[in-house]
Amino acid sequence: MANPNFDIGIVGLGVMGANFGFNLASHGIHVAGYHPHKEKADAFTQHAKAEVSQKGLVQGFSDLKIFLNELKKPRIVLMLVPAGAVDKVIEEFTQLLDKHDILIDGGNSHYLHTQRRLDRLSDLGLRYLGMGISGGESGARNGPSMMPGGDPDAWKHVAPLLEPAAAVADDGTPCIAWMGRGGSGHFVKMVHNGIEYALMQLLSEVYDLLHRGGGLSHAHLQRLFTSWQDSSLASYLIDITADILTQPDDQNTGHLLLDQIRDKASQKGTGKWTSEAAFELGIPTPVIDAAVSARNLSDYYEERQQTSKLLSGPLGISPDTLQARLAGALETAMFLSYSQGMHLIDKANKTYGFNTPIASVASIWRGGCIIRADMLNEFVDIYSHDTPPVNPIFSKEHADKLSMLESDLRAVVAQGALGGIPLSAFSASLAYYDSWRSARLPANLIQAQRDYFGSHTYERLDQNGSFHTHWHHQD
Amino acid sequence: MANPNFDIGIVGLGVMGANFGFNLASHGIHVAGYHPHKEKADAFTQHAKAEVSQKGLVQGFSDLKIFLNELKKPRIVLMLVPAGAVDKVIEEFTQLLDKHDILIDGGNSHYLHTQRRLDRLSDLGLRYLGMGISGGESGARNGPSMMPGGDPDAWKHVAPLLEPAAAVADDGTPCIAWMGRGGSGHFVKMVHNGIEYALMQLLSEVYDLLHRGGGLSHAHLQRLFTSWQDSSLASYLIDITADILTQPDDQNTGHLLLDQIRDKASQKGTGKWTSEAAFELGIPTPVIDAAVSARNLSDYYEERQQTSKLLSGPLGISPDTLQARLAGALETAMFLSYSQGMHLIDKANKTYGFNTPIASVASIWRGGCIIRADMLNEFVDIYSHDTPPVNPIFSKEHADKLSMLESDLRAVVAQGALGGIPLSAFSASLAYYDSWRSARLPANLIQAQRDYFGSHTYERLDQNGSFHTHWHHQD
Repeated sequence: MANPNFDIGIVGLGVMGANFGFNLASHGIHVAGYHPHKEKADAFTQHAKAEVSQKGLVQGFSDLKIFLNELKKPRIVLMLVPAGAVDKVIEEFTQLLDKHDILIDGGNSHYLHTQRRLDRLSDLGLRYLGMGISGGESGARNGPSMMPGGDPDAWKHVAPLLEPAAAVADDGTPCIAWMGRGGSGHFVKMVHNGIEYALMQLLSEVYDLLHRGGGLSHAHLQRLFTSWQDSSLASYLIDITADILTQPDDQNTGHLLLDQIRDKASQKGTGKWTSEAAFELGIPTPVIDAAVSARNLSDYYEERQQTSKLLSGPLGISPDTLQARLAGALETAMFLSYSQGMHLIDKANKTYGFNTPIASVASIWRGGCIIRADMLNEFVDIYSHDTPPVNPIFSKEHADKLSMLESDLRAVVAQGALGGIPLSAFSASLAYYDSWRSARLPANLIQAQRDYFGSHTYERLDQNGSFHTHWHHQD
Repeated sequence: MANPNFDIGIVGLGVMGANFGFNLASHGIHVAGYHPHKEKADAFTQHAKAEVSQKGLVQGFSDLKIFLNELKKPRIVLMLVPAGAVDKVIEEFTQLLDKHDILIDGGNSHYLHTQRRLDRLSDLGLRYLGMGISGGESGARNGPSMMPGGDPDAWKHVAPLLEPAAAVADDGTPCIAWMGRGGSGHFVKMVHNGIEYALMQLLSEVYDLLHRGGGLSHAHLQRLFTSWQDSSLASYLIDITADILTQPDDQNTGHLLLDQIRDKASQKGTGKWTSEAAFELGIPTPVIDAAVSARNLSDYYEERQQTSKLLSGPLGISPDTLQARLAGALETAMFLSYSQGMHLIDKANKTYGFNTPIASVASIWRGGCIIRADMLNEFVDIYSHDTPPVNPIFSKEHADKLSMLESDLRAVVAQGALGGIPLSAFSASLAYYDSWRSARLPANLIQAQRDYFGSHTYERLDQNGSFHTHWHHQD
């Protein structure tokens, strides 16, 4: 039997798995793919031949034992399978892998599942990594952002293989870095997606304000979004939104495609997981929560056709006064969305003992992933301080920047309120900002109410301890 | 041995358990209390003697077997213990109870725990109820709102005992009703608490707008809140807020007590559970979510003392223009808070097969509980239709009412935004309203973005099916 030829095995030869395999091969890595159906395995081999840019070997296998025998030891097996299939694949592989072999889950698993799997496989002597990958199909092929966490020893072994396949930030840093122990890799990827929900909701609100509210054409919006790419707003999601705004309908209706798409947002659950984790950890992430909730509401498409006839109110915004304010409002709200995510990661880090280097999180999000944006350079700077803040808005630089822009956010929220355009995410951003700005919040009333009806006690400003009052009812 | 004397046994003789026991006894029920420490059990007996209004026997026991022997069969045991102690108590009791005996959890257990316990005890031949109780200490003594669910056969048996102890709505209906199978009783109580979070946050925002933003005195606010008790806003939480606003400091500082209370809201988790359940079930409850998140943010008291110095913005609102709008804004937002909770209960009902009569939910919340309010009569009407709506705002009556008030909500949100007062719950209410008012939401852009970067497909307005587009990038 010949010596094993392949550096890494990929399980799951869908678009993500195949594209990532070709990406690795284009950097000289020898990639074995596994699919139980021979035609799928062969298609992978054939498809690889058509990809002229690759330098490494690529071959598909449908026999699991041959596939595993072809991998150099310790074996590295990367799973790129649907979240629901991970446990099944793990069961199949743990019986055939040897001690010290490395299994990597590159899908969107929940971080608590990753933690559970890591503990179990570690007991069996296997090494496990949970690695979030962002960038979609194109990122997988050309360079995604990768967020590996779990067994640090496994990471040392696979880092040299994976690093060349990662996206590269403008300053030359690869968009892959160690996220820490346990389920940290999938936790960070989950928060990435929560921020993605927030940014997408904000952009959809800008679109709604100007198009439905202000009557501006898609072409006009396309020019505005394109112009933002030359500003501090520059980011992947704004870039693709500009593309989307003027794409013609591929079904030749003569309309723009965007006008033909049903306004019913779907989700795979990672945004919801982020909000749930934030609630569990007591971290306010209201812009992410609002984005998840807005998707849920949009799903009631048929009901909205009815309620829109029942509920009255104004509809209309003056686009001229609005446009000058939108860039500042969006920049503020984007900053606050990233800040909420960072705050959540910092808390998880402390609670779960991940030991995540948060400056690295901001760094590897600068390229390849869906939420890449120029402003992440500022987050890298903030987290590179000797004593980084737990929330970026606690830093003076960040606060100074927000203080210059906050009036734009304020104006946009007020105009949306008066003009009848729902601004779930923008208004949550402003309330978040104004809450942090408040040395005194009205939560004293909430504590008084809780003590009144439930004897839950309260703290005082002038003394330490817990206090309970016998409240008087006035008739 | 004498025949058993007691109709019901109560486990947990804290304020809630003792007060509820005295309440039952005042309606002629014979109540045995159990506490493992003799002095606590005896104190319960002594305390009962001092309560002159009772008609039934009341006695405390510290010997578990004697306690159980004193209960008529089938035994009815009501647990009023902290949520963390329920499983332990159940373990202790299941060994000593006989088949068909009835165990009731009257605490704030998570509905999934109640479901699990119900399944297990049912396998053992015991009958189990999970019953939410709202009303605090005073409600427990004088008549709470009770939300029982679980084993329907057990309910038939205990209903005659518990009904006389419930609060009574203005129309004479007792505030206790069958909430359905499984964990329905605790689910409904959880949503009650989620709505409670929303209402408390709204009232705290009213207070913040007028006091911190508008410079009005606590005495002025007290008069305003009191005047609202003669309007369609009339409700328990507004009533106690009026009391709170002018209560003097019981530590004789010469200040009003409210001014001395630290603005750091605590929580026991039922609001968070509501938001998590809503996310899991895909129901938008943004006002509840915002209220939970606002409590989380308020908890960062020390950090806010710093960030308030770093972040700039306006602070000030003209109280004259605001005051005329506040009643309408609050009424709208309160309506929407109840509506979100009802929508969530309807969905849980269908998903978990509770078979909850939703008109009864609105009915039993009209008295005894923390969220009791005159406007719940309108919800009873709406859900008493032959084909009740899944969300009250889908009904014409409700929609007509909101349409008359929406401009007030709009004006308040705009003034808060421009005046620098964080309105997490009011602005979430308005965005919720305006979203339902939108036949067309900008979620088509979100679907286009998802298809662009992740090939997640989208639906079209003009054809059925799922579609994917090869999107063009413009350089």
